[in-house]
Amino acid sequence: MTQQRYRDLAEWPLMGTALVFLAAYAWQVIGRVEGSGADLLEAVLWLTWGVFAVDYAANLWLAKDRRHWFLWNLHELLIVALPFFRPLRLLRLVTLLSVLHRTVGETLRGRVVTYVAGAAALLVFVGALAVLDVEQSAPEAKILTFGDAAWWAITTITTVGYGDMYPVTAAGRLVAAALMMSGIAVLGVVTASIASWLVQRVEESTEAAAESAEEPLRAELGQLVTEIADLRREIAELKDRRGL
Amino acid sequence: MTQQRYRDLAEWPLMGTALVFLAAYAWQVIGRVEGSGADLLEAVLWLTWGVFAVDYAANLWLAKDRRHWFLWNLHELLIVALPFFRPLRLLRLVTLLSVLHRTVGETLRGRVVTYVAGAAALLVFVGALAVLDVEQSAPEAKILTFGDAAWWAITTITTVGYGDMYPVTAAGRLVAAALMMSGIAVLGVVTASIASWLVQRVEESTEAAAESAEEPLRAELGQLVTEIADLRREIAELKDRRGL
Amino acid sequence: MTQQRYRDLAEWPLMGTALVFLAAYAWQVIGRVEGSGADLLEAVLWLTWGVFAVDYAANLWLAKDRRHWFLWNLHELLIVALPFFRPLRLLRLVTLLSVLHRTVGETLRGRVVTYVAGAAALLVFVGALAVLDVEQSAPEAKILTFGDAAWWAITTITTVGYGDMYPVTAAGRLVAAALMMSGIAVLGVVTASIASWLVQRVEESTEAAAESAEEPLRAELGQLVTEIADLRREIAELKDRRGL
Amino acid sequence: MTQQRYRDLAEWPLMGTALVFLAAYAWQVIGRVEGSGADLLEAVLWLTWGVFAVDYAANLWLAKDRRHWFLWNLHELLIVALPFFRPLRLLRLVTLLSVLHRTVGETLRGRVVTYVAGAAALLVFVGALAVLDVEQSAPEAKILTFGDAAWWAITTITTVGYGDMYPVTAAGRLVAAALMMSGIAVLGVVTASIASWLVQRVEESTEAAAESAEEPLRAELGQLVTEIADLRREIAELKDRRGL
Repeated sequence: MTQQRYRDLAEWPLMGTALVFLAAYAWQVIGRVEGSGADLLEAVLWLTWGVFAVDYAANLWLAKDRRHWFLWNLHELLIVALPFFRPLRLLRLVTLLSVLHRTVGETLRGRVVTYVAGAAALLVFVGALAVLDVEQSAPEAKILTFGDAAWWAITTITTVGYGDMYPVTAAGRLVAAALMMSGIAVLGVVTASIASWLVQRVEESTEAAAESAEEPLRAELGQLVTEIADLRREIAELKDRRGL
Repeated sequence: MTQQRYRDLAEWPLMGTALVFLAAYAWQVIGRVEGSGADLLEAVLWLTWGVFAVDYAANLWLAKDRRHWFLWNLHELLIVALPFFRPLRLLRLVTLLSVLHRTVGETLRGRVVTYVAGAAALLVFVGALAVLDVEQSAPEAKILTFGDAAWWAITTITTVGYGDMYPVTAAGRLVAAALMMSGIAVLGVVTASIASWLVQRVEESTEAAAESAEEPLRAELGQLVTEIADLRREIAELKDRRGL
Repeated sequence: MTQQRYRDLAEWPLMGTALVFLAAYAWQVIGRVEGSGADLLEAVLWLTWGVFAVDYAANLWLAKDRRHWFLWNLHELLIVALPFFRPLRLLRLVTLLSVLHRTVGETLRGRVVTYVAGAAALLVFVGALAVLDVEQSAPEAKILTFGDAAWWAITTITTVGYGDMYPVTAAGRLVAAALMMSGIAVLGVVTASIASWLVQRVEESTEAAAESAEEPLRAELGQLVTEIADLRREIAELKDRRGL
Repeated sequence: MTQQRYRDLAEWPLMGTALVFLAAYAWQVIGRVEGSGADLLEAVLWLTWGVFAVDYAANLWLAKDRRHWFLWNLHELLIVALPFFRPLRLLRLVTLLSVLHRTVGETLRGRVVTYVAGAAALLVFVGALAVLDVEQSAPEAKILTFGDAAWWAITTITTVGYGDMYPVTAAGRLVAAALMMSGIAVLGVVTASIASWLVQRVEESTEAAAESAEEPLRAELGQLVTEIADLRREIAELKDRRGL
């Protein structure tokens, strides 16, 4: 079995695993589950980790050039090998983005906009979860409920940053830095989409003008064809007269 | 009567209703009206709600494919059906944007800029009203006067976010999130307009160069036409001599 | 004397007046001058106001269509007629921008960048002055020295907005809103300049490719010219033989 | 030896010196080294300053037009001549950017993105060091550890600006202003890269359409060539018959 074939087969199961993982993680973080429920959720999280570890191993095994794949996918090893820093596990959710990648959007720009809107929404949700996870047990933390975390994530990704909520732990600040960079990327894509739309609209009118400027060229060529046809007829006449 | 015809007829009355609604809502929120005056304003607000509900029903009735129209206009149903969450009612004011849509601006870019400036001003006003409405009665709220609310709306839509004012209720935060997204869109449109203007100006000089590069092609074609005209004359001469 | 001629003559004196005004205003605001020095500075400020008022009157007098000029320059009347709200007087300093307008920058983009950098620096300085002027006497104000005001102006125009300094008076907030909008415009121009540079560089390589694609067309045309020259020679031969 | 030749030779040693300088400076600032260790680090810092001073002198000596080079490189003199304001010395690290300049990135846009990402990371690190250096000894300072400084630098360069950390000294504010401007530039480059990518992708499809529109022109030219070939054959026939 080739790696590509494996990936096609594994895609939907992996996506399902990612969703199960996200649900269990969200439940654990938001619900502050205690007792046997907590053990169950923890077991589910480890199970999804197992699935991702197996997926990594399978990819490595099936890769054409294993050394090359290993070196170019060090980040995947990092995500799989460090399951103890929980927010990092959320990075596995990038698999969910491939759903967005295949959805709607007939034009290139439409696809880009859909993708960015979906990615931003997912980022806010995942960022809020991650920051809540690492902050809620810290002393002096300001982000203590999921509502606060979501509000903080939105003010961060839009680069507004009121400062009523902000992370105080190192882990929370790393999550924040990731969200800020995403915010800049989102802003960039929004602006770029509008700019490219405007440029195209303006260019369409310019091109229409350019085409009408090409008209005389075509007319001249058409005239040439007619002239040469006339020439042939005249020469044919010459020949006919000669034939007489 | 077709739906399009109805919409053309209903447009101005709806816009007037939206303005009356905005005025009454602003009065109620900013004036903190009490007693019989409050009852009157409330009656006016419900009346305008009635007009919008009738408009929704008429649109649904006159639609060619009612099921299709219903599914594609679920957001309108939401706005009409939930008049109890007051800031949401302000969404009806998007009707006012169509005034901007038809105003001035001869070029595409001019239209975009006018539209965005108008939309941003309306957004700041409406956002300030909405946030004041939901915040002013909350304990620990920071936004207590319309001046504060307008100042907050401006710092939010420009993504500056000092943090001297921020909403503390869930409803206020939703309003804030909407304003932030508008801010990103405004920023995007401003940047994109300048970019498209710059690109066009630079391209104009490039195109002038390209045109002068096309000159030899045209010259060659012109030469061809002359040559063939010469040919015809010579052949005509041939024929004439023969005729002698 | 035509209005254009007057404007050309008046430009440099007006610019000097604007500089004198800026210096006197800055001195008054930053130095918190008291006593006879204050009276002198106030006299200088009123004198510069007088010059601008005379300039407005002269422009109106010399305009071809006075009614048209009056209606299209209402903002100038506003600036001249309201000398009592001091920060507004600073708007007269837009005259200083015309210096930037004529400085360096051989390419369009170079001019835009120079202009924006200069305008941003002027805006920060003028915005800091204006906010200090209206805030320093307010109770609970946070902006009390020119250093603080300049720092606040920079955090505002870049839309960073830490929130350690912010205006608390209505006039100060108006100044802030103007600075924020300038910030968005500056951001837009910077982005747009980079974008247009990138687009142009990418297009240059595309155009080179397009030109090489046009090569066969030119070759074919050249061949045509040769062929027709051959034709002429052959016909000439025909004639020569006949002439024998 | 020409200046260019000297620069080529001096490049790698200078880069090494810059790295040594950065390491010693970081150690001194973060480690708050005391006693003999501090003296050693200070000696290293002065040594690197010496290297840069010698480099400046050599460049001036080898320049073709010394007066011209001196006037156009006043900023280098400033950096070399003012070693007492330590954060300014960090400006020498721009030499490190030339490493980025020559790394990877086959396309223009790829190079730009690599360059910006590297420059932003370097800026955050250097900005954090500089602000920590000038702030940590100030009373009422909020930025007291390198972790705080790095967090502050990230919130500043992304223009989020929560306001939980901000510089309080004039020197720290200058560093902050530089970081904010870099942030705007970074944002601009990110947006511009995406915009130019989008514009190019959209244009590719437009160009494909334009090429297919040129098809008939080519067809017509081909027809012309055929017609003229026919003409020649007929004239040749004419001549042959005559020859009989």
